[in-house]
Amino acid sequence: IPNKKLLLLPGDGIGPEVMVEAHRVIDWLARTGRARFDLAEDLVGGASIDVHGKPITERVIERALEADAVLFGAVGGPQWDSQGFANRPEIAILELRRRLGLFANLRPAPVFDALVDASPLKPEIVRGLNLMIVREATGGIYFGEPRGIETLPDGSKRGVNTEVYTTPEIVRVARVAFELARKRAGRVMSVEKANVMESGLLWRQTVAALGKAEYPDIELSHMYADNCAMQLAKNPRQFDVIVTSNLFGDLLSDLASMLTGSLGMLPSATLGAPDASGRRHALYEPIHGSAPDIAGKGQANPLAQILSLAMLLRYSFDMHEDGALIEQAVAGVLASGMRTADILQPGTAKIGTRTMGDAVMREL
Amino acid sequence: IPNKKLLLLPGDGIGPEVMVEAHRVIDWLARTGRARFDLAEDLVGGASIDVHGKPITERVIERALEADAVLFGAVGGPQWDSQGFANRPEIAILELRRRLGLFANLRPAPVFDALVDASPLKPEIVRGLNLMIVREATGGIYFGEPRGIETLPDGSKRGVNTEVYTTPEIVRVARVAFELARKRAGRVMSVEKANVMESGLLWRQTVAALGKAEYPDIELSHMYADNCAMQLAKNPRQFDVIVTSNLFGDLLSDLASMLTGSLGMLPSATLGAPDASGRRHALYEPIHGSAPDIAGKGQANPLAQILSLAMLLRYSFDMHEDGALIEQAVAGVLASGMRTADILQPGTAKIGTRTMGDAVMREL
Ligand SMILES: CC(C)[C@H](C(=O)O)[C@@H](O)C(=O)O
Ligand SMILES: CC(C)[C@H](C(=O)O)[C@@H](O)C(=O)O
Repeated sequence: IPNKKLLLLPGDGIGPEVMVEAHRVIDWLARTGRARFDLAEDLVGGASIDVHGKPITERVIERALEADAVLFGAVGGPQWDSQGFANRPEIAILELRRRLGLFANLRPAPVFDALVDASPLKPEIVRGLNLMIVREATGGIYFGEPRGIETLPDGSKRGVNTEVYTTPEIVRVARVAFELARKRAGRVMSVEKANVMESGLLWRQTVAALGKAEYPDIELSHMYADNCAMQLAKNPRQFDVIVTSNLFGDLLSDLASMLTGSLGMLPSATLGAPDASGRRHALYEPIHGSAPDIAGKGQANPLAQILSLAMLLRYSFDMHEDGALIEQAVAGVLASGMRTADILQPGTAKIGTRTMGDAVMREL
Repeated sequence: IPNKKLLLLPGDGIGPEVMVEAHRVIDWLARTGRARFDLAEDLVGGASIDVHGKPITERVIERALEADAVLFGAVGGPQWDSQGFANRPEIAILELRRRLGLFANLRPAPVFDALVDASPLKPEIVRGLNLMIVREATGGIYFGEPRGIETLPDGSKRGVNTEVYTTPEIVRVARVAFELARKRAGRVMSVEKANVMESGLLWRQTVAALGKAEYPDIELSHMYADNCAMQLAKNPRQFDVIVTSNLFGDLLSDLASMLTGSLGMLPSATLGAPDASGRRHALYEPIHGSAPDIAGKGQANPLAQILSLAMLLRYSFDMHEDGALIEQAVAGVLASGMRTADILQPGTAKIGTRTMGDAVMREL
């Protein structure tokens, strides 16, 4: 078996700190003979702006295209807020999605048993929650043309963005949702605003036709995005897999994450289409941001980055046992009462980034 | 003083039932000499489709244009689900917004003291919440052109909608938010996705410039819509007035409503621009839908419709005392432990629509 090529892109803020802890787990995987990696590391976001003048270079895109998987940290910070719209740190992640064709963003929203009380929702509403949101990630209003700001004859301005989806774009992301549902509780909720937007109507019709033709075993339902936001708050456990557009997915997946009460714990995967040999581009990242306020203080929670590595093993290399080992190590650490500041609760012990990494290594 | 011209549009499902109870309060206002009304009533939504073949007729639009205020119920139901996109019941409300120029949708999200425990959020997070969301309602992706579904040469389809905002559109709705904030806690949060959408960037820049030039007394902040969805769930009391686009407002205001735990209690106002004489078009409606499942059973909660009338008195006629009387009557009924099914809690008494209306009348 050839070595697995990983590209690490720690980025800004707490990104590098939490990446160091994930790196230790990678080293452990290599040391214990579970996998052999070729590791590369490079700059993205503000770190890249500082060195190269832009949030991502062509060279990094090329390295990402060559890698079997990308492990991403986080980007952004106040020192780059004055970069123009076209040069802001977030461009790094948008460009990686676009250039690598990472159209399916998988956002698990599990409630960890040990963290039920950290949710803003009542425990009886969230206990046992195990939701998966599949967000389309290379289409919709994020990338649609025409877009931009123009000045009108009377001197006022007009800002435009375009929501656009084609049937093939909808089909391929819906397929990801249906396939995931087959391995889970067998239910897919497709979310749009078909009552207001034609692009949403096409979305609904396309997902319905695909479900009928190819996934009759999956229970498919449809919901408007406003209602979905409400239902997530009211009773998130009603959902198994949610599939939705880039923009609705942005809001709904962040909402779902918050409802778990443990933003600092949650990983994500963004996947491309498999080629003939089954190989596909993939990027894994914690859902938390770069948290400039605590960067460099050793307080950040590295568990989302470590769990992103576990997702990477599962989705890019089918290494489910090793993924499970890491997930169990994280659960073990939580059960032992150790907490970084973000998930601190009465009766638990506050530790920093490194100590949390140590604890995971000890469990492993 | 001329009589106040009210147009009642009960609509479908529970709309007519809850409107009857609001009607009793209108009669009480007239009987006690507080105001004299010219009342008219007409069909919208499915009820209009059944009679006229379309969800709203030109005649109803004209009556709404002539009225001082419109009190709206709710529209929709499964029997009209097979109407095409252009003829669905929701068209009634979209057409009223468009033709009457109702660009500012005011969505209060208060937590009633008696209903704190009905929230899915922990009581310590929502107690005392008193949030106002100002949603733009005649622009953005709801109305932007081009829009539609086209078939591509290869037989696949493409659905398109356009998010478009001009500076005057942004300014007039932001002004509503700033003015409201002046009478409240003095804080406005403007919400968009300026990190991804140019229309959102124009939104942010325009609101910032207006705030600086004309509302230096108001504390203005900006937040991305995904973060706002999270912050609403985490700590909704951080907000005073939120101002946002049509689409984000749709999701965020429904989310905020759900967090109050009392969807069946919440009114809304949608306001046009004042003309030279200060007169403006306005429509008031409960935020709940037509609830076809309980329609005709006498179980619906009429309080949102009654509180919509209170908002109507306040915003269209400056009748703040009378609005407050109605609001206090509703609070009194709740305090006495009477509840319709939607807000039933241990230790309270379940009553129906009419009995709830009776209780409000008794308090008045
Ligand atoms: C960084 C930003 C462009 C991004 C988005 O809006 O998609 C972020 O919120 C996310 O969800 O990954
Ligand atoms: C009825 C529908 C068109 C509407 C919308 O999406 O605006 C509704 O959800 C609302 O919020 O008033």
